[in-house]
Amino acid sequence: MDPLSRIEHALDSAVAQAESPGCPPLLAAAMRASVFPRGARIRPRLCLAVAAACGEDAPGLTDAAAASVELLHCASLVHDDLPCFDDADTRRGRPTVHRLHGEPLAVLAGDALIVLAFQVLADAAALAPARLGRLVALIGRGVGVPRGIVAGQAWECESSADLAQYQREKTGALFAAATLAGAASAGAEAEPWRALGLRLGEAYQVADDLRDAVGSAEELGKPVGQDLAHRRPNAVAELGLHGAVGWLSELAERAMAAVPPCPGQSALQSHIMTETSRLLPLQLARQAA
Amino acid sequence: MDPLSRIEHALDSAVAQAESPGCPPLLAAAMRASVFPRGARIRPRLCLAVAAACGEDAPGLTDAAAASVELLHCASLVHDDLPCFDDADTRRGRPTVHRLHGEPLAVLAGDALIVLAFQVLADAAALAPARLGRLVALIGRGVGVPRGIVAGQAWECESSADLAQYQREKTGALFAAATLAGAASAGAEAEPWRALGLRLGEAYQVADDLRDAVGSAEELGKPVGQDLAHRRPNAVAELGLHGAVGWLSELAERAMAAVPPCPGQSALQSHIMTETSRLLPLQLARQAA
Repeated sequence: MDPLSRIEHALDSAVAQAESPGCPPLLAAAMRASVFPRGARIRPRLCLAVAAACGEDAPGLTDAAAASVELLHCASLVHDDLPCFDDADTRRGRPTVHRLHGEPLAVLAGDALIVLAFQVLADAAALAPARLGRLVALIGRGVGVPRGIVAGQAWECESSADLAQYQREKTGALFAAATLAGAASAGAEAEPWRALGLRLGEAYQVADDLRDAVGSAEELGKPVGQDLAHRRPNAVAELGLHGAVGWLSELAERAMAAVPPCPGQSALQSHIMTETSRLLPLQLARQAA
Repeated sequence: MDPLSRIEHALDSAVAQAESPGCPPLLAAAMRASVFPRGARIRPRLCLAVAAACGEDAPGLTDAAAASVELLHCASLVHDDLPCFDDADTRRGRPTVHRLHGEPLAVLAGDALIVLAFQVLADAAALAPARLGRLVALIGRGVGVPRGIVAGQAWECESSADLAQYQREKTGALFAAATLAGAASAGAEAEPWRALGLRLGEAYQVADDLRDAVGSAEELGKPVGQDLAHRRPNAVAELGLHGAVGWLSELAERAMAAVPPCPGQSALQSHIMTETSRLLPLQLARQAA
């Protein structure tokens, strides 16, 4: 199976747990709406690519790690969209989960997806039990405290925040969890893979800031201009449009250089080159061309 | 160390992860306010009591299991208190977390506590790695979908709900997770312990309904009359006051009978007798005396 099919299959199996008899049907519907239709699935594809580069030997566990990271990403989007944060009406071109199903079910769907991310790991653990502790720890650290995406989001509630730290946690932490978990699911030493994840996360965040500043709502499937509207720290405000584009390109180079020696090093570097070149907003890519 | 000291120590160590350098201080404060000052700690004490009855041999892992269950309970309270659910002003005699720290930090503190519950298990897993998969699965199932406490809470969003199923999931599922995880942390077979947890959970829910109907806000540290105000399914509305008191007593008997054969069976039964006799609201206990 190609990577995207593996990911969709693993996510579909996970969400299907909510659709088994006895689960409140509206909660199941809210969870499915949180995970499908798919976004770019950047993090789980990264997780699979790293595992392959490390000589993957337990594909079921790698699929679970990839699904876990994506479920946590989806949970964070649902909660970030809530009225008390971004109060967003649309996401991926459709109404957000709280607009579709109401705020209570959006809170609960996010909660259930967080739990499901760990259930999925436990269910696959029989394939390589000794790797589970490391996977739960690495993925948990990417999401929780002190420096996961929840901590990153919480910097928006402080009176001041360091831009680099905010972005490292809000975005980089889960990209790092994707690379670390990819390596750990393949039985490889995980820590050397952290830098790659952090750099890709930083590149992605800068690209996201650029899209928010110059992209169109149609292209993104969600409202633009949110950083300015919510006075959030962001790279375009700090570096200017030109500076942010240059920084994105520099970060992509640094990510390529951060791939540790491994059996599939050059294939992975190609994957990263393709992925990062897709990050520039359409309008800016046209201008640059 | 006595059980309560073990629990408070394990919870304090867990929350301290949010207080390490680099974590947004307001998030750390919201998480601490979610877990301390302590409530009755019924679920983690049950977890420890079951592990002891099973001949506990990895106390650090049992402490982690107990802390995990309590962190998930605290997370559910913080989210249940949100404006989109109960919109509660007080909890344990103090302002609720969203009143103290605002709604965004209450959402994030709940999210971070859910993640922390699994981080705590992973951190203690080195003590008995082969038991981790089972613990994550059992505790995850008690919280998530299809039949954990999040699913139970979601029945409030459906147009109709079966009272027994609603209570079994909203309360019983985490009590069952406490007994199951207690046994699993001690290396015992977990499944025989499910019935005890479900019966205690049901007893606790009936007691909670009674307290909501006849208790005082001072005694409870939170508003009363909420079930009626929110038209929630509850045992007093369904069985009447007298019927609910009788049902509570019947459930306590059934819980005693559900303790499986184990080295510490009679000590555990005494523990359960003491616990369940505490459940009746003060006013009703006085009337009965």
